[in-house]
Amino acid sequence: MRVYNFSAGPAMMPLEVIEEAQSELPDWKGGMSVMEVSHRGADFKACAAETEQSLREVMRIPHSYKVLFLQGGAMGQFAAVPFNLASAGDPVDFMLTGQWGTKALKEAGRMGLMANVVADEKPSRYTRVPDEGSFSVNPDARYLHYTPNETIGGVEFGYVPSTGQVPLVADMSSTILSRPIDVSKFGVIYAGTQKNMGPAGMAVVIVRDDLLDRARPSTPSIWHYRTQADNDSMLNTPPTFSIYLLGKILAWVNRNGGLAGMAERNRAKADLLYGFIDASSFYSNPVEPASRSWMNVPFLMVNPDLNKKFVADAAAAGLTNLGGHRSVGGMRASIYNAMPIEGVQALIEFMKEFERVHA
Amino acid sequence: MRVYNFSAGPAMMPLEVIEEAQSELPDWKGGMSVMEVSHRGADFKACAAETEQSLREVMRIPHSYKVLFLQGGAMGQFAAVPFNLASAGDPVDFMLTGQWGTKALKEAGRMGLMANVVADEKPSRYTRVPDEGSFSVNPDARYLHYTPNETIGGVEFGYVPSTGQVPLVADMSSTILSRPIDVSKFGVIYAGTQKNMGPAGMAVVIVRDDLLDRARPSTPSIWHYRTQADNDSMLNTPPTFSIYLLGKILAWVNRNGGLAGMAERNRAKADLLYGFIDASSFYSNPVEPASRSWMNVPFLMVNPDLNKKFVADAAAAGLTNLGGHRSVGGMRASIYNAMPIEGVQALIEFMKEFERVHA
Repeated sequence: MRVYNFSAGPAMMPLEVIEEAQSELPDWKGGMSVMEVSHRGADFKACAAETEQSLREVMRIPHSYKVLFLQGGAMGQFAAVPFNLASAGDPVDFMLTGQWGTKALKEAGRMGLMANVVADEKPSRYTRVPDEGSFSVNPDARYLHYTPNETIGGVEFGYVPSTGQVPLVADMSSTILSRPIDVSKFGVIYAGTQKNMGPAGMAVVIVRDDLLDRARPSTPSIWHYRTQADNDSMLNTPPTFSIYLLGKILAWVNRNGGLAGMAERNRAKADLLYGFIDASSFYSNPVEPASRSWMNVPFLMVNPDLNKKFVADAAAAGLTNLGGHRSVGGMRASIYNAMPIEGVQALIEFMKEFERVHA
Repeated sequence: MRVYNFSAGPAMMPLEVIEEAQSELPDWKGGMSVMEVSHRGADFKACAAETEQSLREVMRIPHSYKVLFLQGGAMGQFAAVPFNLASAGDPVDFMLTGQWGTKALKEAGRMGLMANVVADEKPSRYTRVPDEGSFSVNPDARYLHYTPNETIGGVEFGYVPSTGQVPLVADMSSTILSRPIDVSKFGVIYAGTQKNMGPAGMAVVIVRDDLLDRARPSTPSIWHYRTQADNDSMLNTPPTFSIYLLGKILAWVNRNGGLAGMAERNRAKADLLYGFIDASSFYSNPVEPASRSWMNVPFLMVNPDLNKKFVADAAAAGLTNLGGHRSVGGMRASIYNAMPIEGVQALIEFMKEFERVHA
């Protein structure tokens, strides 16, 4: 029996994508698995080009941006962005709304950048994003980095920060493909694939052309944006199976209304779950309503001694991976694109019954 | 119909591994794909630990070594090794027997190392390895790097170079698991997985404990050997599907006699193919017999105008990906662990017939 998997990542994928991959796993295009074909063969090159083209269409990526499929996930990009966009000693700006942005900041420091925090929501315990226009950007900063959706705290920006001429860099790992965005407002968008784009093992990087030529000489080749752009992301052997699956996931997004369809679906799921939590005196969510994530919904119970039982009983009922991040405890329901509304409805029914028994 | 796939990588995998993965793709351990499970869940942690333990047993890795599963493939390690083992300006030694070692040398240069080439087989057009004892190691070198098997030229060391106290670093991408090796002679062994260990998207790194603490502060976290060792390779989300498949491939290796069985199987295939080529006046292999690779067998025809026809006709006959590397032309048969001897026999039959028609 298929469960509803609320894991924060790796996460639920559309079942029809998995079943398509299953059916052709030993024989993709004539006697070989897609895992076995040469990345330089015509079949795979066409597959990679189609995946890129689909992503461009789904996200409406302007022609003045390159799309790269790289290894190392988002945490690899924590280092790759500093290597590609700034030299040691250069100033960069960071906005902090949770743990992932803070990790990116630390990595930039290790890469020798002079990082300036222009907004830090730590005093709120990362329960809100900064108000629009409440922070000032250093006009000399090489870029401003932020995390539109913080997976652990469940905090999401409802707006795109204005940074003037300073390139805006966004770690979109846990929000990419969840709603339409205006790519033209960004200098670099990067995302690990293991939430809305397939299994773990790849980072998608969308980079504006004018930022391709700022890399330090010591930038690792596999992360060098210009070099990888000039080589169609095949300077080294790319994660072929991930690229193939991303293509299937994008086709599924298209069949379900594109990013507008995803936004409608995701808003409905989030509204339902937050609405239930807010109406309850047994469960609570600490995030300010305007800053709540559509993708990751942390929640607490009045009595935290019940957390373990909640997570275990839910798993037994086919609602898995509801434990909160190990650093914060409580519970967390990650409801990425592939989670159907029926999964959220089932979770709410379970929460009602758990409250009835334990309140 | 399953073909014999002679691709240099990504490459043929054992069919029974693919079929096992296929059968459990939508439901691995209760209602989820292995691609969807959290890397921090008990099931996947057990899977990763089993894969590591299997690799330790199959390769007889001493307890004084760590095993890491990292992203970025072997080319990522071209940068990661310099970051982890040396500071800018430090001397390192390189032995060059082909294109991959030369790329690793260039990357070390970009990382600021003073690389000294202690042996370079370019004058032979990379058709041999240096004679044992014919080169001298700089005792102050931070490490000596070499490529035991060069995938493009089909050149393989039949011995492990002696480097005294200087740590020996080996890019084993295209030879790992093909025969028994004495891991204790090495400081670092690394390998991209897409030849003998599954699909593309992971590097396996085997590092001696005393080398874990030499990293520069600017080492990207996802490649920091000590940090990853302390986090069981899960500082960031690991390529979970690759780890899972490697476990299945190691079980297949075990069912087929372990590395001794692989060596026997691989030697038989190589002897058969080289024997046929050497007995022919139509085909030739340029590599000195003692330096020939068991894994990658390049070959030429008297008339190179026939190359394209050979590759196309072979593919039509179910023998795929026989084109030589784009930088050298000719043909190349990669005969990794998963290629059965029947594939080599079928190739030889095809070569005989092609010669009969075109000689």
